[in-house]
Amino acid sequence: MSEIAHLGPVEMHTPNAEESLAFFVDVMGMEIEAQDGPATYLRGWGDYQRWSLKLIASDTSGMGVLGLRAWSPEALERRVAAIEATGLGEGWTDGDLGRGRSYRFRDPDGHRFELYYECDRYDPPEHLRPSLKNVPGRYTGRGIAIKRLDHINVLAADVRANREFCVDALTYRLYERIELDDGTETGAWMSATIAAHELIYTKDASGANGRLHHLAFWVDTREECLRAADIWLDHGIEIEAAPSKHAIAQGFFLYGIEPGGNRVEVTTGGRFVYAPDEPCVVWTEAERAKGQAWGVKTVESFHTYGTPPVA
Amino acid sequence: MSEIAHLGPVEMHTPNAEESLAFFVDVMGMEIEAQDGPATYLRGWGDYQRWSLKLIASDTSGMGVLGLRAWSPEALERRVAAIEATGLGEGWTDGDLGRGRSYRFRDPDGHRFELYYECDRYDPPEHLRPSLKNVPGRYTGRGIAIKRLDHINVLAADVRANREFCVDALTYRLYERIELDDGTETGAWMSATIAAHELIYTKDASGANGRLHHLAFWVDTREECLRAADIWLDHGIEIEAAPSKHAIAQGFFLYGIEPGGNRVEVTTGGRFVYAPDEPCVVWTEAERAKGQAWGVKTVESFHTYGTPPVA
Amino acid sequence: MSEIAHLGPVEMHTPNAEESLAFFVDVMGMEIEAQDGPATYLRGWGDYQRWSLKLIASDTSGMGVLGLRAWSPEALERRVAAIEATGLGEGWTDGDLGRGRSYRFRDPDGHRFELYYECDRYDPPEHLRPSLKNVPGRYTGRGIAIKRLDHINVLAADVRANREFCVDALTYRLYERIELDDGTETGAWMSATIAAHELIYTKDASGANGRLHHLAFWVDTREECLRAADIWLDHGIEIEAAPSKHAIAQGFFLYGIEPGGNRVEVTTGGRFVYAPDEPCVVWTEAERAKGQAWGVKTVESFHTYGTPPVA
Amino acid sequence: MSEIAHLGPVEMHTPNAEESLAFFVDVMGMEIEAQDGPATYLRGWGDYQRWSLKLIASDTSGMGVLGLRAWSPEALERRVAAIEATGLGEGWTDGDLGRGRSYRFRDPDGHRFELYYECDRYDPPEHLRPSLKNVPGRYTGRGIAIKRLDHINVLAADVRANREFCVDALTYRLYERIELDDGTETGAWMSATIAAHELIYTKDASGANGRLHHLAFWVDTREECLRAADIWLDHGIEIEAAPSKHAIAQGFFLYGIEPGGNRVEVTTGGRFVYAPDEPCVVWTEAERAKGQAWGVKTVESFHTYGTPPVA
Repeated sequence: MSEIAHLGPVEMHTPNAEESLAFFVDVMGMEIEAQDGPATYLRGWGDYQRWSLKLIASDTSGMGVLGLRAWSPEALERRVAAIEATGLGEGWTDGDLGRGRSYRFRDPDGHRFELYYECDRYDPPEHLRPSLKNVPGRYTGRGIAIKRLDHINVLAADVRANREFCVDALTYRLYERIELDDGTETGAWMSATIAAHELIYTKDASGANGRLHHLAFWVDTREECLRAADIWLDHGIEIEAAPSKHAIAQGFFLYGIEPGGNRVEVTTGGRFVYAPDEPCVVWTEAERAKGQAWGVKTVESFHTYGTPPVA
Repeated sequence: MSEIAHLGPVEMHTPNAEESLAFFVDVMGMEIEAQDGPATYLRGWGDYQRWSLKLIASDTSGMGVLGLRAWSPEALERRVAAIEATGLGEGWTDGDLGRGRSYRFRDPDGHRFELYYECDRYDPPEHLRPSLKNVPGRYTGRGIAIKRLDHINVLAADVRANREFCVDALTYRLYERIELDDGTETGAWMSATIAAHELIYTKDASGANGRLHHLAFWVDTREECLRAADIWLDHGIEIEAAPSKHAIAQGFFLYGIEPGGNRVEVTTGGRFVYAPDEPCVVWTEAERAKGQAWGVKTVESFHTYGTPPVA
Repeated sequence: MSEIAHLGPVEMHTPNAEESLAFFVDVMGMEIEAQDGPATYLRGWGDYQRWSLKLIASDTSGMGVLGLRAWSPEALERRVAAIEATGLGEGWTDGDLGRGRSYRFRDPDGHRFELYYECDRYDPPEHLRPSLKNVPGRYTGRGIAIKRLDHINVLAADVRANREFCVDALTYRLYERIELDDGTETGAWMSATIAAHELIYTKDASGANGRLHHLAFWVDTREECLRAADIWLDHGIEIEAAPSKHAIAQGFFLYGIEPGGNRVEVTTGGRFVYAPDEPCVVWTEAERAKGQAWGVKTVESFHTYGTPPVA
Repeated sequence: MSEIAHLGPVEMHTPNAEESLAFFVDVMGMEIEAQDGPATYLRGWGDYQRWSLKLIASDTSGMGVLGLRAWSPEALERRVAAIEATGLGEGWTDGDLGRGRSYRFRDPDGHRFELYYECDRYDPPEHLRPSLKNVPGRYTGRGIAIKRLDHINVLAADVRANREFCVDALTYRLYERIELDDGTETGAWMSATIAAHELIYTKDASGANGRLHHLAFWVDTREECLRAADIWLDHGIEIEAAPSKHAIAQGFFLYGIEPGGNRVEVTTGGRFVYAPDEPCVVWTEAERAKGQAWGVKTVESFHTYGTPPVA
């Protein structure tokens, strides 16, 4: 069992703040929870925290801090000790909006994380209060109406080293990975829960460090992914990869580039891993050459495009 | 083959104009094409005409004029002659927004119709121009985002007389009907195309005349019907019948009451009738007692509630 | 209005009769209605005629006779006269299983057709009788469980000449076509109904005549198309094009090659054309270069692979 | 975090063994893994263990032993100690097919459980080997093609006592419950994972003990639930509650009675609970009177019908 509860929230920088904000609000259907200088705090109707995305007006695209919530105060302390033992720890911060003290660290590739336990639960204002009390917010149905932040894929020069750090120090569960014929590990799919993936590392072909591959937002059905493609098409959003099904993890996907240049995914599905002793699936080079589940070849830009770390 | 091309546009009166307009625009996702005094002309993104619904601020709910487009100028003349022969004709009008001269008549139950051929084709403004040129308008994805007006169900004191008028004078095709053990016809499902139904008559238990049962708007998938129920739930729209599948015509449905009191349906599916000699399916009293396709009992209000004719 | 009611049934030849039959029965979920020497008559649960596909054990793949049902006995006579006037008529035959006398002709490219009106309506045996009497057969749910034959795409050396024949002599409605910069017509989408397409001609790059591009079978939902891809994948059927949405006609597709070598499609969706005066959409070379609706590029084999005519 | 990994396998008794087996194989689409005297071991294509349902020819309907897999050997020992401390333990058994030693106990209401850790992982024979190696079995697409066992709902005379036992001794997480105005707890929804529910107790109005309410099998999409209703309809399976969405836990459902008299559900959806400190949602009597998510009233038999324990 992982001592991480889940991934998020995440900071994303954009050099086109106005267009990016319009994208996340009008097209993706998120709500603005708060604004603070260059930062806008956004949430999906199914996010239980106050925000899952902090969009920051900047002079670049890319990812800032990636939050991780620990399972308990004790789990937080244990993970901090484990991180400190690796030498990658950077110390405690005061957290962020609605979130208590957080422990800052970097993964071996340089992506910045904050691990925390204390956080506020979202308390909707009257106009966003849902009819059913077991969901966090009202389903407004605006645009794609994404439900919540689901997972992140970050690029790394050395996938194996980062994967080992996440499994060993953070207690992530490793479900699938790719190993080329020469032994290079080019992808690792990890999760803190039964969901197919929450934290993914894929190899950065450029050799750069700390880059973001994509941030994925959840919808409950494949039909919503198909509908999202129609919405992107008619809103002029660049579709990088049309809806189809991944072989790895079995998720259904739609990929595109938001106006600030960051890659985003609308996702659903994905297998559940109920076995506590589930063996890690290792995909070979030959198997990956078959493309996605139904034979769709991965688009070339998927292997090269990423957005840089922002300090 | 029917000489009617299709049904619509339709006039709907509402005593709560502001709330009804908000419902059709924000919840159903229609666009405002024009406004003229108490009337607002509305359209779905897939309607090829300029408008399919004319919402009229009034002191009552209910239906006004129901438009029917003839297949050709010649078909229009032939149908007018046939209507005049029945004594139900009322004469030519100048039409309405974007529509040429129209022939006004009433069915035996008193519902008002206008039959026309000439009409403008929708020419979207830049911000509503679709990416693919074989659809009329942009898919904005707002709320339910209904595609177009699909069909209408009107109540009648004598279903059989009205059905015979529609088949004989208007050349509708009759696909399904209900006949009780005592021989009373309590419902008739007619279409001008291969679609399962466009014009439906059901028996008015109150014995009143000219009432509207419901107006149905099309979405392309059942998932959109399910999603529509979530949207209605969280917008405080009264759900009269939750999504399920009709036995008759096989359509998938969601029924509710718009803020002006008129019943509306979000619909998809329904069988296609390709056989030119398709026999009419006659449902018996015992068969109807089984409920809808999956056994859902028809809600009681469905048999009693309707909105009145507006002169 | 077209005087053709609909397309089908169709003859398909296969050099791997056993595997092809297993494909259509076990994977596509069709029922065997009759067998006669090398021919097996197959149907979908929603086909109202006794059969929609005649699979013929042969030494080649390819299409035999393509049936078209006329709207009425009078329409049949009028269309035969029009065909005879073109010099492409070949005379009357005795029809086929459950079908009366039929008029044999060829289109300019040499594909063989039979036009008929008289045919038997399917009368299911007890074990295939549906619970609801407005569908032709029981929904057994075996494999993909296709509902019915939907449309055909045939290759032609000269698309325009064949399209003109279909519109002029057969009264098909022309909804969409492709015209290259040099004026060549490379595709034409025609229908006898409001459905987006039933008879499609696309240019045969090889210059051959009479070839089949694909035969398409209908399912009611996009989810069934996605599920069909899973079923093909796990039954070893070659997926040529994974599920996605066409720009032209807006249909949702899955393409593959059945064991006999013929291309088949599982399809749903597609726009409805309600306007009697709908203008034909003409796609340019530049527009087609954008790929399908969501940007998926058409697979190369789609432009080159076809199966030959069988005399 | 729960020390239980997941629920299952389950034993189900049937007085109509042949018809029940045909139901689970042909209609639900399960595979037979083994047979042993009166018992048939069945699995869904997505079950990672060798079997999830043991169907036992018997003179009654009802549930036998309900299996629970512990997270680890150590978790197993800790839970056994906790159970023994309650006095409800019965001792170790040799397990069952493909499962190691198991600890037998009863809940306060008398339902029989076996807790285990050791079990075989399913190794498919060639004809059931999937194309993608991250799923356990081939997707044959037969009938409903359920993926796996999902959850169980058992009736209890005293819901609160059983819920407390499951939370305290078994470490289940409690997500939602119903408390009437008089303080009676009439339902409790518990899970070992982020999935909305795995183990549910609802009040037995008859005051009996040890009864089964229903066993639920998972499909990945709502469309498959709708399709399942069509399949049940045409296979003569009694539909008790047509597809709709639960308010509690947000699952999508279809309920019916298998030929042996046991209630089964086809389910999908349901909320995910990512917060480690998620508060339990308590539904009041007034809230439950509103029916399911979209207002569908719970069928009366749902409150009264259950099948007895089998020793």
